[in-house]
Amino acid sequence: MVSVTVWNEYLEERTNDEVASVYPDGIHETLASGLRERGHDVRTATLDEPDHGLTEEVLDDTDVLVWWEHRAHEDVDDEIVERVCDRIYDGMGFVPLHSAHFSKVFKRLMGTPCSLTYRESRERERVWTVDPSHPITAGLEESFVIPETEMYGEPFSVPEPDQLVFVSWFEGGEVFRSGCCYQRGTGRIFYFRPGHETYPVYHEPVVLDVIDNAVRWAVPQTDRTVSNDNVAVDSLE
Amino acid sequence: MVSVTVWNEYLEERTNDEVASVYPDGIHETLASGLRERGHDVRTATLDEPDHGLTEEVLDDTDVLVWWEHRAHEDVDDEIVERVCDRIYDGMGFVPLHSAHFSKVFKRLMGTPCSLTYRESRERERVWTVDPSHPITAGLEESFVIPETEMYGEPFSVPEPDQLVFVSWFEGGEVFRSGCCYQRGTGRIFYFRPGHETYPVYHEPVVLDVIDNAVRWAVPQTDRTVSNDNVAVDSLE
Amino acid sequence: MVSVTVWNEYLEERTNDEVASVYPDGIHETLASGLRERGHDVRTATLDEPDHGLTEEVLDDTDVLVWWEHRAHEDVDDEIVERVCDRIYDGMGFVPLHSAHFSKVFKRLMGTPCSLTYRESRERERVWTVDPSHPITAGLEESFVIPETEMYGEPFSVPEPDQLVFVSWFEGGEVFRSGCCYQRGTGRIFYFRPGHETYPVYHEPVVLDVIDNAVRWAVPQTDRTVSNDNVAVDSLE
Amino acid sequence: MVSVTVWNEYLEERTNDEVASVYPDGIHETLASGLRERGHDVRTATLDEPDHGLTEEVLDDTDVLVWWEHRAHEDVDDEIVERVCDRIYDGMGFVPLHSAHFSKVFKRLMGTPCSLTYRESRERERVWTVDPSHPITAGLEESFVIPETEMYGEPFSVPEPDQLVFVSWFEGGEVFRSGCCYQRGTGRIFYFRPGHETYPVYHEPVVLDVIDNAVRWAVPQTDRTVSNDNVAVDSLE
Repeated sequence: MVSVTVWNEYLEERTNDEVASVYPDGIHETLASGLRERGHDVRTATLDEPDHGLTEEVLDDTDVLVWWEHRAHEDVDDEIVERVCDRIYDGMGFVPLHSAHFSKVFKRLMGTPCSLTYRESRERERVWTVDPSHPITAGLEESFVIPETEMYGEPFSVPEPDQLVFVSWFEGGEVFRSGCCYQRGTGRIFYFRPGHETYPVYHEPVVLDVIDNAVRWAVPQTDRTVSNDNVAVDSLE
Repeated sequence: MVSVTVWNEYLEERTNDEVASVYPDGIHETLASGLRERGHDVRTATLDEPDHGLTEEVLDDTDVLVWWEHRAHEDVDDEIVERVCDRIYDGMGFVPLHSAHFSKVFKRLMGTPCSLTYRESRERERVWTVDPSHPITAGLEESFVIPETEMYGEPFSVPEPDQLVFVSWFEGGEVFRSGCCYQRGTGRIFYFRPGHETYPVYHEPVVLDVIDNAVRWAVPQTDRTVSNDNVAVDSLE
Repeated sequence: MVSVTVWNEYLEERTNDEVASVYPDGIHETLASGLRERGHDVRTATLDEPDHGLTEEVLDDTDVLVWWEHRAHEDVDDEIVERVCDRIYDGMGFVPLHSAHFSKVFKRLMGTPCSLTYRESRERERVWTVDPSHPITAGLEESFVIPETEMYGEPFSVPEPDQLVFVSWFEGGEVFRSGCCYQRGTGRIFYFRPGHETYPVYHEPVVLDVIDNAVRWAVPQTDRTVSNDNVAVDSLE
Repeated sequence: MVSVTVWNEYLEERTNDEVASVYPDGIHETLASGLRERGHDVRTATLDEPDHGLTEEVLDDTDVLVWWEHRAHEDVDDEIVERVCDRIYDGMGFVPLHSAHFSKVFKRLMGTPCSLTYRESRERERVWTVDPSHPITAGLEESFVIPETEMYGEPFSVPEPDQLVFVSWFEGGEVFRSGCCYQRGTGRIFYFRPGHETYPVYHEPVVLDVIDNAVRWAVPQTDRTVSNDNVAVDSLE
């Protein structure tokens, strides 16, 4: 059981009828509900809350932060981005989903533009496991299908993942490195591509199973923290 | 022959007698001189120049940017940091030296605090090659000595290098991953630890040989650029 | 200009009419011809020659060894496998193609079963560049098509590549890590999946361009050799 | 609690008084004892037993295999090497210690010579953690000392580790990548350098703590097995 915070900009569910019909309670509630069913202790936080819902107290109580961001990248406060990154450096797990590849937090952790190609075309995606021993792939078949989604294609301008877990196939001809593990400081990061605000991807049990696995994998691994400053030390020998 | 720009904050050489006695023409001129002897076309740029000497024209003509920064981390203009990173994403090589591990540019590319332990103690460092086939180690012995230096120790909070080229031994008991290769976008980065403003490290031929090798390794590999934006594409199949 | 040896078991071109019609001079001659056109100095060697054509003299004069093997895995003499691996450890490049993933040499270097899934179905493959700065991708479009081929699918039981250069899309729904770089000792290895003895894949200019790039990338990087034995040394400090 | 088998060639403890005085019950019993104290279910196996003690039944019941080998590399039966590697490909963990870097099993999994430099000089080693979030470093200080040991130095001709956990400092001036994680098939491998048959390294609590951590990290991650053969499959799309 992991203490999870699911963050969502929570805008289009309230302004766009198509999105609202797919996620009437908000993407955050859909994800939180799926993670609670899978045994986790989940709170949610949204952009319009004070501190975007990510106060020091909330983060003190967060093992893993799941992140949905689609349009409001520039509206996330730099101070909160800094606060979240500091927690990740000190061990908090981070699971950015789909369009969150373009969030300030993820770009900051990657140090690259994190750009990609895309196509809004309601097409088929097949997600393949390329590392069948990775804990994030536990319980999955060799591949699973997302029947309707938005395509993401290479090149994906991220650093080479520490571990590449999934690669996706799209009916339009593209491939994409859709499950990528990174470590920054002592925090684990798992970028997971499937999703879109106009398709019911986060209602798919297999997608929630992966996010469940990811949350368990991303838990803090140590109590040690990473220093922001350089530390003067004495000679040992 | 590589077109190199050597950047230096160039402060302590002009304010501190000890530093001035070791690098009377500035660290940038010492490095530039060593690189010119080794066949490169080298210009220099310093903090106090307009745009810190890193105008679009200068960067247009820079294959590899070598960077010395010690104290003035906060004084480097964010817009210039952005400009330099954009060029690296598009293929410009970057060779940060010693205390530049704490520069805005390097921290931005790494996405981590980049902190370490240190000791100012005029102690001995032995730099070992751990990957003898890496082009950056061309022509070197298995190890070389820096007789007097400031110690840097682990943990060094950077992402795991794409390739680890050198590991240093310090007489005080520490080790340090002192030669680390990364790729960000299409740009190559080589962090090289040896140096210090009060020791003549950049007068050592072997150190200049490594920086020479690094500059040759870090040259732009492609004309392709990395998009800052996501690109909408049509189906191929 | 690289000194290349192209090795081929050279069996099916002489026993199977379908293969003979696609590669009347043997796959080795098709590859050699394409590489000579691209500026290299190329010899060929086949299974039935003494020492499989891989004498010490031939290997002395080989910068990069390109390898085609399809069925005769068990017929490659263990002593020759050992000899080839020793040369790779000392810097000779190795470019195994397609079904050579199952060769004794490649399996030996990987230390894993190197198994995969496959389908003989004359289907379409699209090869995507995932690392556009990698020298092996020089001059290529973002993707290229092999109109008819045999499918290879994940999981591909190899170690995680040091660099993943290409990922393939197959019309039947699979993906495959089709361009994988490794280093063993001081030798560079590039596994490249496209090919098949019954399809004219090695007549495709783009495929020969990739093998050309691979050969240039895989050249020996150093004169240093890797010791087969542990070496007793004196203290340095 | 992990089901561990500790394998030892068990020769020098019975033929060499110096070794016998340090490990009177054999290195395997010293390791087994330390691991039992730390909560594991441990059996031992030695070279001179039938099948070197590594029958299919024993391996069926082994989550992680710890391996001590010093001189008898050539006496390990190739069929047993094959059997052990097959189990590792299918998920069994493998923890080779010290001179086991030169074992047939480890060399087979690495695909390289695995050579290094060494010096028998009763010198001091300091083992540094370079990845403080790695589970294998749980509960450790930033560094720990082995007061008397045999030196191992770079270059260590192994593939670049998937994760580098420890780097050692030696008073004679060398460094060594002393804690290296790899994955082969679905099996996890942790090479740990400290040890020697004439020094009481395996009586040191901190060394046993690391091996304990390693054993917990290396447990099988999945029930999936890796195929030794290529598998023909039907089209999915």
